[in-house]
Amino acid sequence: MERHFDEELKGLHKELLRMGVMAQEEIFKSVEALKNRDKAMAEDVIASDDKIDKLELDIDEHCIDLIARHQPMAGDLRFITTGMKINAELERIADLAVDIAQRVIEIADKPLLKPLVDIPKLSVVAQNMVRDAIDSFVKKDAELARKVVLSDSEADKLRNLVADELINDYMAKDPSSASRAVQLLLISRHLERICDHTTNIAEDVIYMVEGKVVKHHPEEL
Amino acid sequence: MERHFDEELKGLHKELLRMGVMAQEEIFKSVEALKNRDKAMAEDVIASDDKIDKLELDIDEHCIDLIARHQPMAGDLRFITTGMKINAELERIADLAVDIAQRVIEIADKPLLKPLVDIPKLSVVAQNMVRDAIDSFVKKDAELARKVVLSDSEADKLRNLVADELINDYMAKDPSSASRAVQLLLISRHLERICDHTTNIAEDVIYMVEGKVVKHHPEEL
Repeated sequence: MERHFDEELKGLHKELLRMGVMAQEEIFKSVEALKNRDKAMAEDVIASDDKIDKLELDIDEHCIDLIARHQPMAGDLRFITTGMKINAELERIADLAVDIAQRVIEIADKPLLKPLVDIPKLSVVAQNMVRDAIDSFVKKDAELARKVVLSDSEADKLRNLVADELINDYMAKDPSSASRAVQLLLISRHLERICDHTTNIAEDVIYMVEGKVVKHHPEEL
Repeated sequence: MERHFDEELKGLHKELLRMGVMAQEEIFKSVEALKNRDKAMAEDVIASDDKIDKLELDIDEHCIDLIARHQPMAGDLRFITTGMKINAELERIADLAVDIAQRVIEIADKPLLKPLVDIPKLSVVAQNMVRDAIDSFVKKDAELARKVVLSDSEADKLRNLVADELINDYMAKDPSSASRAVQLLLISRHLERICDHTTNIAEDVIYMVEGKVVKHHPEEL
């Protein structure tokens, strides 16, 4: 039975890795859709959400089933409940990619307000954070999780750069830019919120591995 | 032991109710701080966050401990894992009240751009949704949870009203209003996102009670 349980835990790893890869893909596609003002790709991101919701539910059921059948001891139990939390965060991350796609559809028919510089950077930061956060969970690697938590300040900086530029250089100078500028500003906030969810994952991993709370206390890293 | 377990489950109810009341208070206070441009009250919301983070952690530990000691059967296990999810959602809701408070601090020294109408309405919707969602969990009341899910469209409508007014009547007419208008727009989005988290809670309750998935499928209500 123990070996069987280990196999099932590895199955859970795989499912969460798959969910993580899907979330990364949706982030990537939503920002590609923005760059190319590609409505079809944005629609595709929105359509994928059902698949991700379904996977979230399957993983959740799998976790409850694992607990009910194997009645795992403290360490394994905490690993599974952390997996349930990560699962929920990944689903929220995919929801935020859908939010981005919806903004893209609203502005796709108009010319882009400005060349995109910081939003694609923020998208790369977000995708890397998601990848590393899931890796840190599967490998129980608190150091890698710390790296993820520290990346969040980079995301905050990029979001602030985007907001300052849009407000001061566009909205405040040309009121006709307001509606498109607001959409770009919201997209940057969706991306930064993706990074926040990823930080939650990394904090959960650190707590699982070390029993140490770093939430909102990065000085304790 | 069974009676003891029931007592412990009631303890979990109480803790989650307390967490729900705290989240409602923070939403209320953050919007009061906005109405009165009251920086001290906004600071107070930010300071309360540590207390809520601590309570979230305690509830989470309590849940894991309950599972490890009592190895509950399917129904109780699902009740406890749903409690863990609700706990995480409530912590995120309190984080969003902190986000509102931070916006308030940024605009507190300037006169309000416009009399507030829809934002206080949205705040009341959010607080009522939080209250009803927690009640629906404790009472295992899927009907009440459905009511919460349906309220979310009211929140979306109010948020859209706020955005349209700020963009078309303020930013697009008076570029000097951009910075303050953006803060109000973000506050309305934070409130609407609180309603989204509350909807997640209600959806989890419906799934717990009926095994029925309503996520993103309100037509199945």
